[in-house]
Amino acid sequence: MKLATYKDGSRDGQLVVVSRDLSTTHYATGIASRLQQVLDDWNFMSPQLQDLSEALNQGKARHAFAFEPARCMAPLPRAYQWVDASAYLNHVELVRKARGAEVPASLQTSPLMYQGGSDDFLGPCDDILAASEAFGIDFEAEIAVITADVSMRASAEQALDGIRLVMLANDVSLRNLMPDELAKGFGFVQSKPATAFSPVAVTLDELGDAWKGGRLHLTLQSSWNGRKVGMCEAGPEMNFHFGELISHFCKTRNLRAGSIIGSGTVSNKNASHGYSCIAEKRALETMKDGAPKTAYMKFGDTIRIEAKGRDGVSLFGAIEQEVVPLLIEP
Amino acid sequence: MKLATYKDGSRDGQLVVVSRDLSTTHYATGIASRLQQVLDDWNFMSPQLQDLSEALNQGKARHAFAFEPARCMAPLPRAYQWVDASAYLNHVELVRKARGAEVPASLQTSPLMYQGGSDDFLGPCDDILAASEAFGIDFEAEIAVITADVSMRASAEQALDGIRLVMLANDVSLRNLMPDELAKGFGFVQSKPATAFSPVAVTLDELGDAWKGGRLHLTLQSSWNGRKVGMCEAGPEMNFHFGELISHFCKTRNLRAGSIIGSGTVSNKNASHGYSCIAEKRALETMKDGAPKTAYMKFGDTIRIEAKGRDGVSLFGAIEQEVVPLLIEP
Repeated sequence: MKLATYKDGSRDGQLVVVSRDLSTTHYATGIASRLQQVLDDWNFMSPQLQDLSEALNQGKARHAFAFEPARCMAPLPRAYQWVDASAYLNHVELVRKARGAEVPASLQTSPLMYQGGSDDFLGPCDDILAASEAFGIDFEAEIAVITADVSMRASAEQALDGIRLVMLANDVSLRNLMPDELAKGFGFVQSKPATAFSPVAVTLDELGDAWKGGRLHLTLQSSWNGRKVGMCEAGPEMNFHFGELISHFCKTRNLRAGSIIGSGTVSNKNASHGYSCIAEKRALETMKDGAPKTAYMKFGDTIRIEAKGRDGVSLFGAIEQEVVPLLIEP
Repeated sequence: MKLATYKDGSRDGQLVVVSRDLSTTHYATGIASRLQQVLDDWNFMSPQLQDLSEALNQGKARHAFAFEPARCMAPLPRAYQWVDASAYLNHVELVRKARGAEVPASLQTSPLMYQGGSDDFLGPCDDILAASEAFGIDFEAEIAVITADVSMRASAEQALDGIRLVMLANDVSLRNLMPDELAKGFGFVQSKPATAFSPVAVTLDELGDAWKGGRLHLTLQSSWNGRKVGMCEAGPEMNFHFGELISHFCKTRNLRAGSIIGSGTVSNKNASHGYSCIAEKRALETMKDGAPKTAYMKFGDTIRIEAKGRDGVSLFGAIEQEVVPLLIEP
């Protein structure tokens, strides 16, 4: 099934079930009002949502109406945990080489992960608000999963069983704020503003054999100002699968239902696939010519991130955002 | 007023109001069942809780009963944001010098902050579960605040107005896992397991003139295995006050109601105050003798963290935890 959260003026929005082809939707009222409730009590609530989903897909849901992604919040508008990884080592290597930083050998065997802010996510069509273009505004197209409860010390295999939903993410990054933050030694704070997620989050059965070995074997499409800049394969070059990422995180703690785990920027060694973030394009330019020539995003720029099934149908809906200046009242 | 959350088998527990002297408590049923609800709608709900608090303090609340800290979850058992700082530079300098790491000059003017896991907090008397003593289990006694909504670009002064509640934290750290994680460049993940919080969170008016300039001017007491090891002054040496910490965090994003901000380990230059984490004691030993002689916590060790008002009454109740081995089923 496919789940989304409609804006209703509240902090958590209204849970809706969306048809497989993303054409129609139906309020989940009577079953659950918020996605977190469902994740907290999955075994009881998800079969009821599944019944509604089937009725909707068969055109038999009584109060179905047209699905509009622009009315969506993030599937989880706020979450208790958002851990992002950097599971595509090609991305890490490119970006670090370009800034002359080391790539520790440990990254081959131990995933790079960091915790992000989960109190204020963006909907798929919400503006990327920034006070200044000088921050170096970049998109990062990623795959993300939402988990069930996963116990401390879970193995990678056990952790795979804890994946409930899959979605796309735009992990907006402020590149020019990163050097100073990383120099302090504790990772990102200001340089990772609010993250946006795709209109719908989907259960694994919706993905068919595109979900295999804890990876999503699909092409992640990124279009910047209407121009397709990335057609990156999300499956084969993900060095650590989602089960391995979750298991790494759970070595010393439990992960509770509704936690979101990100893959990091999807990245391919073969540069003909393009890029899922501008930093990689700039890294390639720097390594070739000694300096980057592609600028980061400007106010008014747009980014569209989407993944289609082999039948050409959009699986998660598209993230479609515009960079907008933050107006500060005098 | 003083608020706590009683265990009831659910993920979020039951909100209770606690008397000023921590002797009695009363369910907040009829007003709100969970603390996050109150933070989401503070202006409507907090006056009702305040009325109940006054009745309780006057011995007039009808269904009051004895307050038992051991029945408490963290005031917010799970939160949408947990950002910890390292606002006492003496702590940063000690720990970094001991491991031969640089202390960047930028730390004098720009606070060191990092995001932690907020999906699975520990109650004040919950065990610290660890799979191995070899992780280097340490306590960190801290002050923490819970915020209202704070807008992107809020000034330090504006951010101070967004502080709703104050509590204590034990930011458990696994010291021996840190070097490998920090070498990767993105901060902590495995080395910061679940954080514990004091039994009650209190509004600023309960603190009187101990709350001044965004700092808590009280002595934070830490007792390790029953021996008082820390009597650290939390006020004067906090290099960045809570408004400055929140404002720093909000430079590029909103902070939403129910976010928790930590001070970092409370630390004094004058070593006669003792220590709020073992790492500082070991750092002093290393600088003096070339090697630490105090070992980290062992299974069975206990830690008690508390702050008393000038009248000698415990303000937040005590964090009292034991380190317990995690048993893994075969």
